[in-house]
Amino acid sequence: MKLQDLYSAIKAKNSFLCVGLDSHLEKLPAHLPKNMEGLFQFNKEIVAATSDLAVSYKINTAFYEQYGRDGWDVMERTLDIIPDDCFTIADAKRGDIGNTSGMYAKAFFERLNFDSITVSPYMGEDSVRPFLAYGKTVIVLALTSNQGSSDFQHLSAEEKPVYQHVLERVSTWSDPDHLMFVVGATRIENLAHIREIVPNHFLLVPGVGKQGGSLSEVAQYGLNSRCGLLVNSSRGIIYASQGEDFAAAARKESEILQKQMKSVLD
Amino acid sequence: MKLQDLYSAIKAKNSFLCVGLDSHLEKLPAHLPKNMEGLFQFNKEIVAATSDLAVSYKINTAFYEQYGRDGWDVMERTLDIIPDDCFTIADAKRGDIGNTSGMYAKAFFERLNFDSITVSPYMGEDSVRPFLAYGKTVIVLALTSNQGSSDFQHLSAEEKPVYQHVLERVSTWSDPDHLMFVVGATRIENLAHIREIVPNHFLLVPGVGKQGGSLSEVAQYGLNSRCGLLVNSSRGIIYASQGEDFAAAARKESEILQKQMKSVLD
Repeated sequence: MKLQDLYSAIKAKNSFLCVGLDSHLEKLPAHLPKNMEGLFQFNKEIVAATSDLAVSYKINTAFYEQYGRDGWDVMERTLDIIPDDCFTIADAKRGDIGNTSGMYAKAFFERLNFDSITVSPYMGEDSVRPFLAYGKTVIVLALTSNQGSSDFQHLSAEEKPVYQHVLERVSTWSDPDHLMFVVGATRIENLAHIREIVPNHFLLVPGVGKQGGSLSEVAQYGLNSRCGLLVNSSRGIIYASQGEDFAAAARKESEILQKQMKSVLD
Repeated sequence: MKLQDLYSAIKAKNSFLCVGLDSHLEKLPAHLPKNMEGLFQFNKEIVAATSDLAVSYKINTAFYEQYGRDGWDVMERTLDIIPDDCFTIADAKRGDIGNTSGMYAKAFFERLNFDSITVSPYMGEDSVRPFLAYGKTVIVLALTSNQGSSDFQHLSAEEKPVYQHVLERVSTWSDPDHLMFVVGATRIENLAHIREIVPNHFLLVPGVGKQGGSLSEVAQYGLNSRCGLLVNSSRGIIYASQGEDFAAAARKESEILQKQMKSVLD
């Protein structure tokens, strides 16, 4: 799905929910085999149980890379079973010199056919451009949800924090149909100002739920005329139950979020 | 190999050369099959032809990920044939929230058994810690060799560039036996000052050769009492010839660099 079509999906489903597939063997329900087939089965049932409530799925590549080539296989197979009306995100946080970023872009946009990828801005413009060249969507880290975001993202440079420089500069590299930003929900106090800097871009917001952010606050400061938000929940949904009812429990948690989202969209 | 043992290898080989295996199908010599077996054969011959001259091999993960699971397979097999007296680097530039960085660490330190990995500092301390927990070596991006390094790494924050904050802060997170920094050779003018900030750490220096940096200048400003430098060359060595003599040509280019290194070490 192209980012241009995301707003239609959001309206159709009354939802801006992204489900994060941070799936790994140690946390599989007991009745599933603790192997790659079990991992795929888990993803398949989660997707089947939630895809009318979610508009996006985020595959956290680290969780699959830990299993080497077999994990990449599960990632490829999972991507194949995500419905076309959902926006797919490779949460890969890549970024390297241009030549190398081009290879990563090939990996995630050609080989795997993701709709988007998360990218770190540290190496600057020529590390991001090769991803933009595909006409898909690049999601650049701006302000992340973790404790360590205060180490460098909040350094004050020329009277504003580094992450604001990232927003200002990166937003000139492409348009809001091909560029998004990661903005953590644990930093709500900054969201209103971020919206002033990038009024038209979609924001990918992790950190709602387990990491402590509040959906209503995110919506209050983050919504724009075409929604402009994708709110991700990973563990809160996929590990809602570790019993045989895990898919039903994932659906229930997704419904709770989707209902809240419907009410703020109304 | 542990980083503590790298200096012994440097003395034994009179070299601080790292060969970058940025290998891909489009650039294989014509006589090798354009498939994963050809790619592995290429790496195998390059390593065999250079491992008495190089002290380190850097596998650029992007080049392998572009081939999905099959590429990961070649990466695993290549790692297996690198001799034990060489320091192995996963040039992966990863970094994410703690939980996720832990999975990347597992991928590269357990599943693949690399000696070290390159990590982006943008997400801060808790994104780097899980890599340090393995007692191996973490190589943090400080000042990179590409054009885009000027976008954010050179932003002036509290009267010094962001990359200096990275060096100062990250160097408190572990000791020089477990932590290195990436410092591009295209920014020689900054190297002397970088050495003042991190006098004892090894620096991984890309950008010599094709990217334009000079080895003698790097040595002049970068050497410390235990050498403290790993200078990487990728394309200049592995694609020195695209004929049947590619391995001999790679050896010849490595020899040229090793001789220069010997003379600066003397």
